[in-house]
Amino acid sequence: MRDFDEQTITQAVLTSFENTPDPRLRQILTSLTRHIHDFVRDIEPSFAEWRDCVDFLTRTGQICDEKRQEFILLSDTLGISMLVDAINHRMPEGTTETTVLGPFFVVGAPALPLGADISDGMSGEPLYVEGKVVSASGIPLAGATIDVWQSDGEGFYDVQMPERDNMALRAQFSADADGRFHFWSVRPSFYPIPYDGTVGDMLKATSRHPNRPAHIHFMIRHDGYEPLVTHLFDAESLYLDNDTVFGVKDSLIVPFEHKSSGTAPDGKAMDGSWHALNYAFGLKPAAGSVAASVASALAPAAA
Amino acid sequence: MRDFDEQTITQAVLTSFENTPDPRLRQILTSLTRHIHDFVRDIEPSFAEWRDCVDFLTRTGQICDEKRQEFILLSDTLGISMLVDAINHRMPEGTTETTVLGPFFVVGAPALPLGADISDGMSGEPLYVEGKVVSASGIPLAGATIDVWQSDGEGFYDVQMPERDNMALRAQFSADADGRFHFWSVRPSFYPIPYDGTVGDMLKATSRHPNRPAHIHFMIRHDGYEPLVTHLFDAESLYLDNDTVFGVKDSLIVPFEHKSSGTAPDGKAMDGSWHALNYAFGLKPAAGSVAASVASALAPAAA
Repeated sequence: MRDFDEQTITQAVLTSFENTPDPRLRQILTSLTRHIHDFVRDIEPSFAEWRDCVDFLTRTGQICDEKRQEFILLSDTLGISMLVDAINHRMPEGTTETTVLGPFFVVGAPALPLGADISDGMSGEPLYVEGKVVSASGIPLAGATIDVWQSDGEGFYDVQMPERDNMALRAQFSADADGRFHFWSVRPSFYPIPYDGTVGDMLKATSRHPNRPAHIHFMIRHDGYEPLVTHLFDAESLYLDNDTVFGVKDSLIVPFEHKSSGTAPDGKAMDGSWHALNYAFGLKPAAGSVAASVASALAPAAA
Repeated sequence: MRDFDEQTITQAVLTSFENTPDPRLRQILTSLTRHIHDFVRDIEPSFAEWRDCVDFLTRTGQICDEKRQEFILLSDTLGISMLVDAINHRMPEGTTETTVLGPFFVVGAPALPLGADISDGMSGEPLYVEGKVVSASGIPLAGATIDVWQSDGEGFYDVQMPERDNMALRAQFSADADGRFHFWSVRPSFYPIPYDGTVGDMLKATSRHPNRPAHIHFMIRHDGYEPLVTHLFDAESLYLDNDTVFGVKDSLIVPFEHKSSGTAPDGKAMDGSWHALNYAFGLKPAAGSVAASVASALAPAAA
């Protein structure tokens, strides 16, 4: 194989992958080669542009560390994450819609008792969250594991605060015998995704804003069901119509109800304004290997 | 913009790039979005596969340092580099064909006088290289700048030898008034591209070998001409027919002539076997901004 031209080079690369033992890997690399060569032939990059692309990808990798995943941000802001999400969640009636995992999930959040306050001094107005985990047909899923994580009232996650060395506004709860859970937190704000890296460079160069509407992340798991990765969005937030990662779904927008003083549902006497939300999450039955592969995908996600 | 499905997400991302001030950047990102979304819809990745891809790209970036560029290797082994090369070098009659820059070019190689020996103790049989730099119509290009870099007789570049702290088997020469140059080196070997990173993982998983046929890199520049980035391949080398980066062209395969003792062309008395090669390089006239953009692409290439 020698002397390839702008067309024959593609077949040469496809031929080089012919002996790949794993048929799925061969399928992926064959499709990747075809689409990426078509992209290159379409834009006809100069050497300078090719080199800029190499540098962009290199810097994107080098910004990543245990608290930051710039390639996930890139996937998010190019709509790839939500496309992969849509492909993997053709959801049946009665189940909650999904959205992006995002770059801020951390493995090992503290397991807390129901009713705990996860805010640990982070800023924001008090928020009482209660929810229920059910199957698509409405059966309560006792003991479901609920991971939650969110920004504070100024739009910051704990991992973005270098002066903090403990986790906050993230926890793991277990649903009670009726599939119910509740906890105290603070009302999150809309926020910009990290803007000082390569993804920020792309957003600036394309006159795109970096903001996401206010939301709380949930990852809910129960044996026999697919893990549910989703958000609840604050119905009053800015940016619901132009989330920079394309993650908003109408069914995930909920009222964060305004309350003033009085008694909270858990009997706590409230002094000043606070908020409350309530949501029922429906889980999709596991489809054998699909559930297994999602679970294994999530396990290393923040390792 | 909310509630995208597997098809409408693509238009949402394209719309987000509509206000990009630079029309070329808008064109590139529009084409990238279309092709990458088509790729994702084609392969329907699981979450685990998407996460594996994020991890692969992250590790690829993190392996890069001032001596190693894994994303260039990835581009090379997917045939992207040679495709970009082909698009940028639709060469007129009388000019030398081009091939990949590769990951081992280093800015700041020593400027040496004609006739110098660049091997500096690196292993291999002596090789006498002589050449000539001419225009497409055969006019000698006096004073042309010739960068050369190559592996040793065991297939290693200086930058792959952690115990070395000085450059070897790389230099910069200036052609004489007749466009001629000559220097001493060693006969290079075929070699594997770096195999211990993400690109090595890909080659192993696809049962591809990592080898390139023996070659010497040249980058030749002269005012008014496009920089020429090419190799000369040893006609007796293994892997000429299956270079792992798809870089071989028949016109770049030359005899590394066997000699035994006697007197070299520069008058040096030789004791034992040595080799000699001779090649005339034809440069393409600069086409305004094309030459400028190639030059600017090469300048930061090893920064």
